[in-house]
Amino acid sequence: MHPLTPLIPSEIEACVEILTKNFLIPDGGKFHFKTVTLLEPPKAELLVWDEGCSTGPRPARRAYLVYLVQGMGKLYEAVVDLNKSCLVSNTRVQDGFHAWADGEEIIEAERVALSDPGVKAEIEKFELPPGTAIVSDPWIYGSDGVNDERVMFQCFLYAQHPEGGPNPDSNHYAIPLPLSPIIDAVTMKVIKIQYLPTGSDKTPTPPKKRLIPPHAEYTPEYQVLRADLKPLHIVQPEGASFTVTEEADAKDSGGAVIEWQKWKIRTSFNGREGMVLHNIHYDGRSLFYRLSLSDMNVPYGDPRPPYHKKSAFDLGDAGAGIMANNLQLGCDCLGVIHYLSSNLTTSSGAVLPMPNVICIHEQDNGIGFKHTNYRTGRAVVTRNRELVIQSIITVENYEYILAFIFNQSGELAYEVKATGILSTAAIEPEIQSVPWGTIVHPGVLAQYHQHIFSLRVDPALDGPANRVVYQEAAALPVDPDTNPFGVGYTVKETEITHSTSVEASPFTNRTLKIQSTTTKNPTNSLPCAYKILAPPFQPLLAHPSSFHHKRAEFADKAFYITAHRDEELYSGGRWTNQSRGGHGVRSWANRNDDLITKSNPVVWVQFGINHIPRTEDWPVMPSESLRVRLVPVNFFVRNPGGDVPPSTQAVNKSVQIGKETVVIAGNHGEGDSANVVGEGGEVTTVESVLNTDVKKEGRAGEKRCCGEKKCC
Amino acid sequence: MHPLTPLIPSEIEACVEILTKNFLIPDGGKFHFKTVTLLEPPKAELLVWDEGCSTGPRPARRAYLVYLVQGMGKLYEAVVDLNKSCLVSNTRVQDGFHAWADGEEIIEAERVALSDPGVKAEIEKFELPPGTAIVSDPWIYGSDGVNDERVMFQCFLYAQHPEGGPNPDSNHYAIPLPLSPIIDAVTMKVIKIQYLPTGSDKTPTPPKKRLIPPHAEYTPEYQVLRADLKPLHIVQPEGASFTVTEEADAKDSGGAVIEWQKWKIRTSFNGREGMVLHNIHYDGRSLFYRLSLSDMNVPYGDPRPPYHKKSAFDLGDAGAGIMANNLQLGCDCLGVIHYLSSNLTTSSGAVLPMPNVICIHEQDNGIGFKHTNYRTGRAVVTRNRELVIQSIITVENYEYILAFIFNQSGELAYEVKATGILSTAAIEPEIQSVPWGTIVHPGVLAQYHQHIFSLRVDPALDGPANRVVYQEAAALPVDPDTNPFGVGYTVKETEITHSTSVEASPFTNRTLKIQSTTTKNPTNSLPCAYKILAPPFQPLLAHPSSFHHKRAEFADKAFYITAHRDEELYSGGRWTNQSRGGHGVRSWANRNDDLITKSNPVVWVQFGINHIPRTEDWPVMPSESLRVRLVPVNFFVRNPGGDVPPSTQAVNKSVQIGKETVVIAGNHGEGDSANVVGEGGEVTTVESVLNTDVKKEGRAGEKRCCGEKKCC
Repeated sequence: MHPLTPLIPSEIEACVEILTKNFLIPDGGKFHFKTVTLLEPPKAELLVWDEGCSTGPRPARRAYLVYLVQGMGKLYEAVVDLNKSCLVSNTRVQDGFHAWADGEEIIEAERVALSDPGVKAEIEKFELPPGTAIVSDPWIYGSDGVNDERVMFQCFLYAQHPEGGPNPDSNHYAIPLPLSPIIDAVTMKVIKIQYLPTGSDKTPTPPKKRLIPPHAEYTPEYQVLRADLKPLHIVQPEGASFTVTEEADAKDSGGAVIEWQKWKIRTSFNGREGMVLHNIHYDGRSLFYRLSLSDMNVPYGDPRPPYHKKSAFDLGDAGAGIMANNLQLGCDCLGVIHYLSSNLTTSSGAVLPMPNVICIHEQDNGIGFKHTNYRTGRAVVTRNRELVIQSIITVENYEYILAFIFNQSGELAYEVKATGILSTAAIEPEIQSVPWGTIVHPGVLAQYHQHIFSLRVDPALDGPANRVVYQEAAALPVDPDTNPFGVGYTVKETEITHSTSVEASPFTNRTLKIQSTTTKNPTNSLPCAYKILAPPFQPLLAHPSSFHHKRAEFADKAFYITAHRDEELYSGGRWTNQSRGGHGVRSWANRNDDLITKSNPVVWVQFGINHIPRTEDWPVMPSESLRVRLVPVNFFVRNPGGDVPPSTQAVNKSVQIGKETVVIAGNHGEGDSANVVGEGGEVTTVESVLNTDVKKEGRAGEKRCCGEKKCC
Repeated sequence: MHPLTPLIPSEIEACVEILTKNFLIPDGGKFHFKTVTLLEPPKAELLVWDEGCSTGPRPARRAYLVYLVQGMGKLYEAVVDLNKSCLVSNTRVQDGFHAWADGEEIIEAERVALSDPGVKAEIEKFELPPGTAIVSDPWIYGSDGVNDERVMFQCFLYAQHPEGGPNPDSNHYAIPLPLSPIIDAVTMKVIKIQYLPTGSDKTPTPPKKRLIPPHAEYTPEYQVLRADLKPLHIVQPEGASFTVTEEADAKDSGGAVIEWQKWKIRTSFNGREGMVLHNIHYDGRSLFYRLSLSDMNVPYGDPRPPYHKKSAFDLGDAGAGIMANNLQLGCDCLGVIHYLSSNLTTSSGAVLPMPNVICIHEQDNGIGFKHTNYRTGRAVVTRNRELVIQSIITVENYEYILAFIFNQSGELAYEVKATGILSTAAIEPEIQSVPWGTIVHPGVLAQYHQHIFSLRVDPALDGPANRVVYQEAAALPVDPDTNPFGVGYTVKETEITHSTSVEASPFTNRTLKIQSTTTKNPTNSLPCAYKILAPPFQPLLAHPSSFHHKRAEFADKAFYITAHRDEELYSGGRWTNQSRGGHGVRSWANRNDDLITKSNPVVWVQFGINHIPRTEDWPVMPSESLRVRLVPVNFFVRNPGGDVPPSTQAVNKSVQIGKETVVIAGNHGEGDSANVVGEGGEVTTVESVLNTDVKKEGRAGEKRCCGEKKCC
């Protein structure tokens, strides 16, 4: 198996066996597994081994395990060597660090909150109509430094609309209840029941009769669906243009090699990051060693306790892999689709199959390039075919559609689409406005919040020796000799010599570039490079002294650049649950590591949305799209997509409305006069070489208003 | 006919007849028509008349004519009343203003440059191989205040590769020649032949032997085309979801009403702006009165004469309508396509049919919304179907793909894709680097340049009374009472009370919003509004004292807001050819017009690319995409796309690779416990209402690691 192939079921089982045989939990405790996952080999080892041209030894196959001793609050990390079938290490994690919440805990916390007699007694004070179901959304407790050493859940409660009978898919976010049980995550007991503020200030409101607002539902049974949308099929009569190769021994592991249009990409999948891409090549040239969503942070702007603790790290606190949807044919993407499945683990250490967590398909994204020679009327146009490698995750109320997208011109992108349902809070129905949120439904406050994503880019442009620079464009000084008319401008490049952060600077067109330190463009001797283009981004708004800021070590800057270390994959730190900061990318960047000697930068790209909710995001949010692009800059000697076959009706088979016959193919026009150099070097004017048949169909000539005498 | 329907052929003919009968050119001169086009009725008249609920008189049908007296350099504007068949006005345009270049002039300038004996003699000095064809690209002369009162063309010369025989579609931009004939546009004679600089400074280089670099071609006959791209068809078995209605009397005028998914949009087409949208409604509510690309500017950053004058206004100097491509079925878009045709005029005043200048089609743009209820495992997902109204223009070397795009959630966008070929200049082959451009091919310099687009947004949100504000997000001050943990943030709104410019400010999340002054959201009393989201933009780099800056009145700011005036459609001014500034949107904004009393703002949105060429843009540029979005903000009470039918395999008919059977539909999981309020008000915990059949298929439950005892 390839060293990056995710653990297969027998390996997961072997790991659990090796650990449980070698480590006996005292006092009859029980293992509660958080993860049993591949420990990727060190980059240095893998680069030496290198698939296809193995010059070094094959890296050891190792697994990384995280587990709790159930009910004890003790957290362990272990490493298993699968080649030697032995436990390499097994250490208790330092106090103060907590594992992410898993599904079993979340479900149990829901059950505990709803079955607690104290909670039930409080709920009765809302005087809800008979048949009203109550739902509990457990949240990671967050940190504020106040009595938050132990791991807890903060549960937010909601009611489901009683009208029309109980429907478990009724949107409970439409009826938030101002009551929050807090649960000890180790003992799984309610330790506190908080009243929540429902006015314009922080005063908690004791439960009182809760009026039921009108339905606000997103499921189709509640809608009058529009009936005038006609089907649109993506048909690929010869199948997909890509191939997916899985190892015979590791089918459905999530590890595969995808080849498409000169691209070669290796996939993997794990519980925390979800899909990860490795060893990305174009036309045989190495581009990136590893691309992954590193973490994301969703801090809320409502300053009132306990809302001030709402700050989710969706990867670190839960996991993009474990939350990955089982993608459904014809629903989540169109066309000819290849699904990859993988395996994770249950808390007991059993193999948990994760079917269809990654989908691979092609899409048409408009025109690739077009040019019409206006002299001959001849148009050359290609389509921009893209390859999409996609995963969708559900994080309680929100959904994120995550995709790596490749085109035929050597460009790739990471796309996030945010959708799902707003996290809501109760507010008195007569209040129309508060400074930190939008009223989206009677009695329903949607607090302002930011979605901040952190993309980890581990480059290998023409090999591992890379550097990072940023380029800016600036006016040249007005100068009577060099810039007399004041129109000149130029670019300047700043090299990142030490690990650091870099702010965005759109007004100077600041563009981060990763360059090979070894290869140059043969035409202009510029370094072979890729640039990073990201959408406009307002960094984290929380005050630098706040826990939001301390914890979200990536969220305050558009870019971080660090020196590569194998263990540094998660920009918010390995343990984000009730974290205090100090263990993420900001801390690593602060080491001021030399980036020149080893030429081993890792780039962390932050991007996101400041989500000021609007009623149009309610009750379900239209997907909001963000794309970070990685674009070749003097890496190739010409447009790598210049060899894409032109777009033709013969292939594309489109249909024209209102015409029985197909229009004349081609876009011909009248020729032009041109000078030609003769045999003796003399220049003569000649008529266009275009034949007269083309001229007869001419329109490009006509449209240029060439006058009656000439054209008509 | 609707007052906004473009002139039909008989009206064009009538206008020409009315003018030429009523105005006799002295001295046997000849009319050279620049345009015969609809003069749109004043907004005030059209709003009162209002299609569908006409309360006011029908506006007069009038035409606007621009013409030259050929060979005299005199420019006239005339207005014809088509109802009364009379000439309303006919005035000579003030000296110093010049009409745009038309196709006949451009072709004539090419011919003149290439047939001039002086030019031929200079070309011979390049000692080009026999069979080498010479091509001339006439450019608008630009302004620098130095002897540029008369209208001229600056021609840039190129050779076509002689190898393999003459091919009129060989890419001449690969062999720029450092020689530039200047032509008087009135007398059409070469008045000067300039040598161009080819070194690292401004020194002009006299012609000498020009080495022919390798081929750099974009047409398929020169490529080894990739053979592994499989066809992808967009199939719409029931046809398109939109309808296009043209008036019986005005077929192929470019005027049509498009209805699609609650949208209603009127189109028109003219020589300058190309496609224009009017009276945009969603679900019966008025959104925008008129949307149009107002102008664009492409200033180059090479400070050396004569390159310092390269600054194209592609709409004002030429025209997006007259340059519109005749779109070809199956090449320029996929699926079921409706084309609109229109008519312009030749220089003689004859009707010039413009077939297929606008295409209308639908596209799938991924997921519209998705939410999975993790408790029941039920996913609801819709596709994001879009309507595209598109036009493609060719401006000598460049192409722009221009599209208005509508979705089902009340959002619309204006998308520009830039493609085509770089405008190049000759450089000594041994030079690898200059401060103002990139060497993209041996001996070929691609100068840095900006593409700056100006979108005119004439709003009518719930009617014409609108205001403009911008919203910014800011941290709340840390305060022990109101923001003790430092995480709070809020938004503040700034009203634009007088005409002005507004800078972009991504770090404060500054968001321009157009609000109705009359309607409010019933849920939260916020004004019904649309926000404008634009990509990051570096404004014009040229110095404020430069002619580039003076002339491109829009290019220096992200937004201008002016008080509506019917005649103010073109942000660079009506006459951009060799303009001096003082007549565009900057000047109008400087009037400091009151925007409150009349509530009649017009918003001008600037966006663009600072194009630092790379070899990957060569010899044809992969399309570079920019989208300006107009997004409802509390305009609707809920997601307007919430009634889109869910995406299903039954409708979408996708294909799964490697599976013979279709996977199980639905995304079901195990149910959850929930509290239910009983008849007596007591709260009890019950099992989920989901049936056990669903549970058996469960995966959502399993994937949440619920443990062996519970699930397995």
